[in-house]
Amino acid sequence: MNGNAHPLRARRLRLLTQDEAIVLMRTDAHVCKSEGLGPRARVLVRAGAREVIATLYQIENAWLLAGEVGLSEAAWRRLGLNAGDVVEVQNAPTVESLADVRRRIYGGRLDARAFGAIITDIVAGRYADIHLATFVAACSASPLDLEEITHLTGTMADAGDRLSWDTPVVSDKHCVGGLPGNRTTPIVVAIAASCGLIMPKTSSRAITSPSGTADAMETLAPIDLDVTAMRRVVEAEGACIAWGGAMRLSPADDVLIRVERALEIDTEGQLIASVLSKKIAAGATHVVLDLPVGPTAKVRTDLAADKLTAHISAVAASFGLKTRVLRTDGAQPVGRGIGPALEARDVLAVLQGEPQAPQELRARALAIAAAVLEMAAAAPEGRGAALAEETLASGRAWVKFQRICAAQGGMREPPVAPLTRPLAAAHSGILTHINNRKLSRLAKLAGAPDDKAAGVELLARLGDYVTAGAPVVIVHAETPGELDYALAFAAANMDMFEIEV
Amino acid sequence: MNGNAHPLRARRLRLLTQDEAIVLMRTDAHVCKSEGLGPRARVLVRAGAREVIATLYQIENAWLLAGEVGLSEAAWRRLGLNAGDVVEVQNAPTVESLADVRRRIYGGRLDARAFGAIITDIVAGRYADIHLATFVAACSASPLDLEEITHLTGTMADAGDRLSWDTPVVSDKHCVGGLPGNRTTPIVVAIAASCGLIMPKTSSRAITSPSGTADAMETLAPIDLDVTAMRRVVEAEGACIAWGGAMRLSPADDVLIRVERALEIDTEGQLIASVLSKKIAAGATHVVLDLPVGPTAKVRTDLAADKLTAHISAVAASFGLKTRVLRTDGAQPVGRGIGPALEARDVLAVLQGEPQAPQELRARALAIAAAVLEMAAAAPEGRGAALAEETLASGRAWVKFQRICAAQGGMREPPVAPLTRPLAAAHSGILTHINNRKLSRLAKLAGAPDDKAAGVELLARLGDYVTAGAPVVIVHAETPGELDYALAFAAANMDMFEIEV
Repeated sequence: MNGNAHPLRARRLRLLTQDEAIVLMRTDAHVCKSEGLGPRARVLVRAGAREVIATLYQIENAWLLAGEVGLSEAAWRRLGLNAGDVVEVQNAPTVESLADVRRRIYGGRLDARAFGAIITDIVAGRYADIHLATFVAACSASPLDLEEITHLTGTMADAGDRLSWDTPVVSDKHCVGGLPGNRTTPIVVAIAASCGLIMPKTSSRAITSPSGTADAMETLAPIDLDVTAMRRVVEAEGACIAWGGAMRLSPADDVLIRVERALEIDTEGQLIASVLSKKIAAGATHVVLDLPVGPTAKVRTDLAADKLTAHISAVAASFGLKTRVLRTDGAQPVGRGIGPALEARDVLAVLQGEPQAPQELRARALAIAAAVLEMAAAAPEGRGAALAEETLASGRAWVKFQRICAAQGGMREPPVAPLTRPLAAAHSGILTHINNRKLSRLAKLAGAPDDKAAGVELLARLGDYVTAGAPVVIVHAETPGELDYALAFAAANMDMFEIEV
Repeated sequence: MNGNAHPLRARRLRLLTQDEAIVLMRTDAHVCKSEGLGPRARVLVRAGAREVIATLYQIENAWLLAGEVGLSEAAWRRLGLNAGDVVEVQNAPTVESLADVRRRIYGGRLDARAFGAIITDIVAGRYADIHLATFVAACSASPLDLEEITHLTGTMADAGDRLSWDTPVVSDKHCVGGLPGNRTTPIVVAIAASCGLIMPKTSSRAITSPSGTADAMETLAPIDLDVTAMRRVVEAEGACIAWGGAMRLSPADDVLIRVERALEIDTEGQLIASVLSKKIAAGATHVVLDLPVGPTAKVRTDLAADKLTAHISAVAASFGLKTRVLRTDGAQPVGRGIGPALEARDVLAVLQGEPQAPQELRARALAIAAAVLEMAAAAPEGRGAALAEETLASGRAWVKFQRICAAQGGMREPPVAPLTRPLAAAHSGILTHINNRKLSRLAKLAGAPDDKAAGVELLARLGDYVTAGAPVVIVHAETPGELDYALAFAAANMDMFEIEV
C-alpha cells in the first residue's frame, strides 16, 4: 500500500456535464481524509489501464455510500466502466504543460513542443475549465503570431484521428461563423460529386445554434458514419455528408470552442487553428472558405476579412493545403427555414429546382460550388459558375444527392411540425433589419434542434415591404408547451424585426 | 407568463462545492426544454427577492423529480432557502462586466468604474470559474500598473464589510506567502497590546496548508467572533486574534485567491490588492509586512522583494495606510510544530519563556513586534527591539495573551495526539535542505488541520548534524488510518530531507 491508491466502487450517476469529468464522493469517504481531498480537488481516477482526471465535489446525503464514487457520464465513458466496477482515486498529479501556459501569459512565445504538450493534456481531459480559460486568454492577450498559429494548428490536427484519401485532390468547404439557415453544404457537395470531385464532407451538429448542417442533413439520411462506412460511401459516390462527431477529428477543437464561446473570446489565431486543424485531419487538400461579412456576423469589416484571408492562406499553405476565401453577405439569414427539417426543405427545393426555392441560398451554393470546381481544375478559372449552374439546373446534382443519401443508409422525408403559428407584422413598412441572435433564440424555444421539425420559417427578406397583420415568420413546434414559450418570447421581442414606415 | 420564469421545488442536495453555485435538473424538466438549457448552462435562480447565478448540470436518475431543482450548499445558503421552497429558474443574463475583462485581455487598461463592476459581479457570484480564470489571466498577461492596482485594491476593500476604530493608530501585521509553522501573530499581538497598542487582528484558516493562524489559535481560545464580540474584546484588552472568515472583509479576495492558487498564477498586482484590501477593510492604519525571501518562498530574490516593497508602500500610501516591510529568512519552517495544536504549543513555549522554545520563532516575533511598536510610536526608532524583548521576557506579554483568550471566551489547552511515530534519518550527516511542500503534505496526511492535534514535529534544523537512526521528525495523528497514510507517504518521500554526508 503506497498511501496513494484507494479502491472505491464506481456508481454511474447519469450526470450530464458535456465533456467535463466530475466525480462525487461523501465527505466521510476514507480517501478524502487520507488524501486530504476537499470540494473541487482535481483527482486522478484509474480503472485498470484507463484513467481520467476529474473534478471532485463532495456530497453528504444518502445518494452515495462512503465506499462509492459517483461519476459523470463523461468520466464513466472515458473509463469504459461497467456497473459495480472498482476504481482507484487519488490526488491528480500536477499538469506539467500548465507551466507553458503560464509562460505565455507572462509574454513568452510557445513552440511546437509546448503546443504539443498542452493539446495532448487538453485532449486527455487533464485541464480543468479554469486551465482551459487561462490557455484561451493566454493566446488572446498577446495574439498568436503566424508561427504559433501554425504550431497550434498542426498539433491540434495530430491530436485526433487523421483521414487520408489516395487521390491528389480532396475538396472541402467551410463556413466561418454562423449565419442562420446557411445550408449550402449538401448542395455544394452534390454539385461537386456530380462533376467527379472527391468530397468526403464532415459537418457538425448545432452547439448553440438552432441547427447545424449535420442536424439538417440527418432529416434526409443517416449521418452517423464511422470511418469505414464513410470510405464506402465516398468510394461509391465520390462524396458524403457525415457527422464529424463520430470521427474524432481535432478533438481539442471541440473542447476549446466551448470555452471560447462561453468567454466570447474568439481571436483570429484560434479561429484559424480551429478551422484548418479539422480540414487537415479530414485529409482535405483544397478548401473553399465561405466568409460572411456583416454587422452581426463573426467578421464585421472588409479590413478584418483581408487580414484573416491572408493569414489563413499562409498557415494553410505551410501544410500544403490550398484555400480560397469567398466573401459573402452576412446581413441576414440565408434560407427560408431555421431548424433542421425546415433547412432541409430549403436544400431540397434548391436541388429539385423548384421556382419558390430560396434564391439567395441557391446563389450562395452555386458561388461556393464554382470555387470548389475551379480549385479542383474541374472547370477553368472563370468557368466554374457556368458548370455549377448547369449541373444544378440539369438535375444531375439532385440525382447525385439522392445516390449519396441512399449510400449513407437511405434517403428519408424531413418531418413536418404538427403545430404552426404565424407572427404578423405590427405595422406596414420596409423590413430594414433582422436580429439574427433573437431569431435563433426563437427557433430554439420552439424546440430546434432536438425537435427536428421545430423552428422558424422566414417569409420576408430585408428590403421587402410588409403589410400590418401579414405574417413575417411562421413558428413551427412539435409540442404546445414549446409553441407557447416561443410565442411568449416572440410577443416580447418583435423588435427583432425592424420595419420602417 | 413571460416565457422566462419557471417555478420548481428546491431540493437541498448537501452538495459541497466551496463557494460554487451549482444546480441539478433533470433533462426532462420543462424549463430545460423551454429555455433551451443544456449541461453547463449558466442559470439565474430566484427565490423571492434573492437570486443567484449557478451552473446547471443535468441528471437522468431518480434522485430528482422533473419539477425539482437540486442546489449545492453554496446556492442554498445564498438564497436562504427552506426545504420545499419554490424557486424560479431561467437563462442567466449576460454579465456586462465581462466586456471589461475582454477589453483588458486585448490590451486595454481598466479604471475604477470597470474594476468596481467586475468585483461587484464576482462577489455576487455572477462569474463562472472560466470567467474568474480569465480575469486573473487578464490581470497577469499585461501586469496591472500602479493605478490599476490601486483601483482594484479600493474596489475589493469596498466590496465587503468595513471595520472602523475611533483611534488614530490601529496596528496590524501580515505574513506574505506561507512558511510552515510561522505563527508569530499571537506573540506579536500579545506584545503590542501589552504596550498599549490597538491591534484588532483577524487571521485566516488554512486553505491548502496544514494550519492557518486561526486554526492554531482556535486550540487556545474561541476565534469565531462577530464584529460586536470583536469590539468588546478590543475595548477590554486592546487586541484580539479572531477568525476573519466570520466577518466579510474583502470577500472578492477569497474567491480570487482560490483561482490564483489553482492556476499557480500569483502576480504582484493581485498579491498587493489581496493583502491591502483586507487590511483597509479591517480599519488598520499601520501594517508591518513579514516578507519571507528564499528559494522555496513566494518571493525568491532580493530584487523581487525591493520591487514588491516599493509598490506595496505606494499603493498603501494612497489609502493613507502606513506599511513597513521586514524581510525574513524563507528557507525553512519557523517553529518546531506543523499543525494547529503543535504550532500553538510553540507559541505558548515562547510566551511562557521556556528555554526549549523555538528560538527562530521567538526572534521573528520580536523583530515584527519591534517594527509594530516603532510604527505606532510606542518606542523610538531603533528602540522597539528592546521594548519587545523586555515585554516578552518580563512575562507581561504572556499575561496579556491569557487575558485576550479569556475575553474571547476562555483559554484552553491544545489537544495532544494519541498516536505519534518518529521518522529516523536514513544516514548521518548535515541537514542541508528541507522540502517545505512535502513536509506540509505529510502534516496534512496525518490529519491537519481538521484534526487539531495532528501534524509534524520537526526535531532538526538546517545545518544540524543528524545521526543515522535518530529521529528527524515526529508524526502526530489522531487515527491509525491517517498515521498509516502519513507514514506510507513519508517512507516514499524521505528525500524531503537532504542530508549531506
